[in-house]
Amino acid sequence: MKTKPLRVALLGFGTVGGSVARILVERPDLADRLHLTHIFNRGVSRKRADWVPSSVVWTDSIDELFASKPDAVVEVVGGLEPAGAWVRRALEQGSAVVTANKMLLAAHAPELLHLAATRGTQLRFEAAVAGGVPLIHGVREGLAGDRLLRVSGILNGTCNYILSRMAASDEAMAGVLADAQRLGYAEADPSADVDGHDAGAKLVVLAGIAFRRHLRLEDIPRQTIRTISAADFRYARRLGCTIRQIAMVETDGPDFHAFVGPALVLRGSHFGLNKGANNVVTIAGHYGGENSFSGAGAGGPATAVAVVSDLLSLTQRTHERGEEWPAGRIAPPPPRPYYLRFVVQDRPGILSSIAAALANQGINLDAVLQEPGYPKDALPFVITVEACEEPALRAALQDIARSDFHAEPPLALPMLVGDDPKG
Amino acid sequence: MKTKPLRVALLGFGTVGGSVARILVERPDLADRLHLTHIFNRGVSRKRADWVPSSVVWTDSIDELFASKPDAVVEVVGGLEPAGAWVRRALEQGSAVVTANKMLLAAHAPELLHLAATRGTQLRFEAAVAGGVPLIHGVREGLAGDRLLRVSGILNGTCNYILSRMAASDEAMAGVLADAQRLGYAEADPSADVDGHDAGAKLVVLAGIAFRRHLRLEDIPRQTIRTISAADFRYARRLGCTIRQIAMVETDGPDFHAFVGPALVLRGSHFGLNKGANNVVTIAGHYGGENSFSGAGAGGPATAVAVVSDLLSLTQRTHERGEEWPAGRIAPPPPRPYYLRFVVQDRPGILSSIAAALANQGINLDAVLQEPGYPKDALPFVITVEACEEPALRAALQDIARSDFHAEPPLALPMLVGDDPKG
Repeated sequence: MKTKPLRVALLGFGTVGGSVARILVERPDLADRLHLTHIFNRGVSRKRADWVPSSVVWTDSIDELFASKPDAVVEVVGGLEPAGAWVRRALEQGSAVVTANKMLLAAHAPELLHLAATRGTQLRFEAAVAGGVPLIHGVREGLAGDRLLRVSGILNGTCNYILSRMAASDEAMAGVLADAQRLGYAEADPSADVDGHDAGAKLVVLAGIAFRRHLRLEDIPRQTIRTISAADFRYARRLGCTIRQIAMVETDGPDFHAFVGPALVLRGSHFGLNKGANNVVTIAGHYGGENSFSGAGAGGPATAVAVVSDLLSLTQRTHERGEEWPAGRIAPPPPRPYYLRFVVQDRPGILSSIAAALANQGINLDAVLQEPGYPKDALPFVITVEACEEPALRAALQDIARSDFHAEPPLALPMLVGDDPKG
Repeated sequence: MKTKPLRVALLGFGTVGGSVARILVERPDLADRLHLTHIFNRGVSRKRADWVPSSVVWTDSIDELFASKPDAVVEVVGGLEPAGAWVRRALEQGSAVVTANKMLLAAHAPELLHLAATRGTQLRFEAAVAGGVPLIHGVREGLAGDRLLRVSGILNGTCNYILSRMAASDEAMAGVLADAQRLGYAEADPSADVDGHDAGAKLVVLAGIAFRRHLRLEDIPRQTIRTISAADFRYARRLGCTIRQIAMVETDGPDFHAFVGPALVLRGSHFGLNKGANNVVTIAGHYGGENSFSGAGAGGPATAVAVVSDLLSLTQRTHERGEEWPAGRIAPPPPRPYYLRFVVQDRPGILSSIAAALANQGINLDAVLQEPGYPKDALPFVITVEACEEPALRAALQDIARSDFHAEPPLALPMLVGDDPKG
């Protein structure tokens, strides 16, 4: 079947937008399916590139772009506004939208999907999660036959770079973070990465894909990685583990359990073995068991592959049914084992006091670890506890925090080390 | 858009077919899209299962099944015939076909794809490679925007079980193979697995997906894993490596380089870390770099997920363009480093004789390894050589094999240890 090529307008000519244009220019085999007509950018005269064919219209007028009635609009501007207004305007006028904008989707996916469905057009976003890893196609189509139970992953390359380097070198967080900023892996303000906002937004998108439910980013418990110390990696190793920022959502039917933050994972698991800025995602299904996907989570060319793949998928499907994401409810997590790390001014009676507070909440100790070589006035030691309810653990930790022997606030990390959930 | 459910007829009610039926029965949420109407099996009265709804027609008459004009036929019978005749008949009458039959596809994919295209129907086969791993959707759609350079993987669970167990235990091949047969991981006649026929057929399908070219299975060099000994794992470890059965195809433009057989891979690579019967596939693209997929390569439920996912994808796409796989040409591999293992009756002059034969072909030695503890009359030692052309290596090995000091024939394995290709 011979059809006319899709007329594509590009909103944004930064790293990703430039790479999208480059693929379209460098792959003449795509010319009968995709035809780049417009490139929009603020101050577009600065941006103009001589390798783009002269037939492409460069503009800094959003109205000119929309007046051309593109078949598909690629939004790689990022941020909530004005990107959100432009995506809505495109869908309103019946243009399909391909976006890499995880923040926009995390906040407004249900509304945008509904808008696309009512206008008989499509909203695609393979690039919004795990950059070039073809997760969405793999999960939404390749695993459509399964009943999915859990999606978990390393979705933030900056945190993984920091934590995997700390694991390898025993350096402190501050120095590694400063290096990551110098090398361009971390922003000047690293909050969105290290405090879990970025991974949380990606998790909202992933949960939508896997479960067709929208979880509110505000409802997803997020824990910073800033509190992780070199001592934590030493203790984690004693437990056959390492520490990674994990984003996870699982379901037991009506409710969803979600978490973003540092967790202990087995050193030999997919998560424990993942180094540097790579992303890895594991999907568990009732029938098919576990599948893992890994690859470059960011970068212009890898992300642009996802955008172009989405554009190509638009040329193949004219009768795809619209997708809706009704709200999903987040419930407290199921019982889990936890790693508890205390840093204390050492004196007799501390362990028995902590043990009593845990026992008061019905929480069983699993192991007590104390490595040599630390100063008496800031002595880190670790207690692991058997699977327990999180509210009981919080209550015990509040109780423990009232004591005056702490040199630092206690740290609690989930241990994702069982058969279920594992990495 | 409301459409009628796809009427599905199931050809074969073995492990996979039974699991397909079970998913369709257990997932009422799919009922508005997929409707199982017929189950065909030889001696069907033995097969009848009471959990299948009474509306489903059980039959051992293939004519009755085709007379019902199903929208989609699921072929999970396996083998070239009569499965091939039934797939052709289904496509001829315009039914879509979902198959898990790698041998049929390896032999006849171009003809079957062409037949589907001319009849305006679809042929889908996510289940034919790597069981439940959603490779085909991930690669064909999620990486459609890239220019793919290489596909490599561990595609045969039996070989991976045998080799990863030998690596862990230092056992000999014979005992591990016998165990694998006892446990049901290997067939009574293990040739299709250990000699590379099975992985080769899967590689033909993967190459079709990735490059839209058909490689003839007969043209793909295949090497058995039967010659791998415990000593090889010892030497591989010395080199930071282990041994896996790898199936690989790469392209430099017009030609394809393919290989199936045991190879040295880095212990820390995706391939080296893959244990047991799991499958893993790595795809390298010009723009997106490397992506890896891993999961269960076989088993009824995991394979059935792939079949049901294919059925669901049929309900979404009515205007997909037909795919054709013109013949691809296989050329000799690019220069690679090799691992050469000799088992000799030790005497002076052996090393210099081998080194001279290699030098005669312009091949440079990289390392010579000889571990202690082996008998003098069957002494294994290893030479690694720098990247060289395969024909030169073959000529040198023919020359070397003429000497009378060999206790076993020399073994040559490619070393897939560089940045490119890696696992």
